[in-house]
Amino acid sequence: MRISELSRRSGVPVATIKYYRREGLLPGGRALNPTTVEYDEEHVQRLRLIRSLIQLGGLPVARAREVLEAVEQPLDAFETLAVVHHALPVPAAETSGKDGKDGARRDEEEPGGAAGEAASAGAGARVEALIENMGWRISDASPHRPALAESLAVLSRLGTDYTTDDLIPYARLATSTADLDFAQLEGIEDHIALAERAVVLSVLFEPVVRLLRRLAQEDANHRRHDRNACGRGEGTGE
Amino acid sequence: MRISELSRRSGVPVATIKYYRREGLLPGGRALNPTTVEYDEEHVQRLRLIRSLIQLGGLPVARAREVLEAVEQPLDAFETLAVVHHALPVPAAETSGKDGKDGARRDEEEPGGAAGEAASAGAGARVEALIENMGWRISDASPHRPALAESLAVLSRLGTDYTTDDLIPYARLATSTADLDFAQLEGIEDHIALAERAVVLSVLFEPVVRLLRRLAQEDANHRRHDRNACGRGEGTGE
Repeated sequence: MRISELSRRSGVPVATIKYYRREGLLPGGRALNPTTVEYDEEHVQRLRLIRSLIQLGGLPVARAREVLEAVEQPLDAFETLAVVHHALPVPAAETSGKDGKDGARRDEEEPGGAAGEAASAGAGARVEALIENMGWRISDASPHRPALAESLAVLSRLGTDYTTDDLIPYARLATSTADLDFAQLEGIEDHIALAERAVVLSVLFEPVVRLLRRLAQEDANHRRHDRNACGRGEGTGE
Repeated sequence: MRISELSRRSGVPVATIKYYRREGLLPGGRALNPTTVEYDEEHVQRLRLIRSLIQLGGLPVARAREVLEAVEQPLDAFETLAVVHHALPVPAAETSGKDGKDGARRDEEEPGGAAGEAASAGAGARVEALIENMGWRISDASPHRPALAESLAVLSRLGTDYTTDDLIPYARLATSTADLDFAQLEGIEDHIALAERAVVLSVLFEPVVRLLRRLAQEDANHRRHDRNACGRGEGTGE
């Protein structure tokens, strides 16, 4: 197919395809003559993955290039997913980046180093205990392990300590959610397509999961209200 | 207590307390004499809520002021939580804001108006069907309802349609997660404290939930790998 067809099939504009070519993200097509280049299905798959990594995953071009090079190796599906999964942007507490908006300075907000470090160390131990307790197999190189410790440390510094036992029910629900996620990957054989789906699932489907929690919280508020009203004898006589 | 003690108790620096005072977010204390002002427990609670809304929730000062005014009304706990919940920043697909980084222009990426509008309308209907199916009570004014429709529309435009039936298992897990969330609010009587906890739960605890899903995905990848290896007779003979 010509570049215009490649653009239509992948949903990526011609100018952007040329940019990805220049950046070495997309291999060249087959030159039919000095002015015409032919592309194939592999280019369509590859472009979809590039788009997912950069536009949805928010990866810088250099990082996306690393992932693409890794995915090109003769990996199995397991390794392909592991590479992509660890390359994705890591969810973090929303405090950073928001600071200064209201004139507050972050360094003033943080309790002194010793207390902060103790909170971080305790949080790391709680994450390890949680992983062990759940029987989860998590690579030492996982970026999500220290990120979870940091989120727990932030909560500790703000006065809310979550113990391993507090987190286990949430971790069990996360396991069920991950099982639903992986059910969506069944039957995808092509590794490039699998990698693209994994990015969509982890990144693009994430707001859906977050919004479902918010909606469920609103309903839970109704249910709590009903329960409390009934408990105080203000209910409908049930 | 004096302002220095108020700062220590709330974890908010003196300069920031004075800024919140000037912006009308924090009521004045009792003037003991022309240079000394006395603050009380209510100021501590109120400061914690202000900090949560602005620094954790990322709300602009004007929006935080509206929430504080609403929470000051003689509301019950249900109404207090509803006001805070709808004021929080809404999770959104991460595509917006990321555009242009790689030289692509967003307007080129979007399929033409008609297709986009059809995807949005279909997504809205799927959200309504989901809410009805789950028996969730969601206010017409909920910002999470259109946000979920928008997230689903983005997925549709990228070639992945989630039906109501696809979403129901995720919604069930969201209900269980919301029940865990609300268990954390039990026993908090003071409405300002309740509002503060609700912000922490919805906003600051959110990265924890997201990271648990990522960790569980890594483990699910291991489990899928084991299963497939055994299925192909490459397993350990089990």
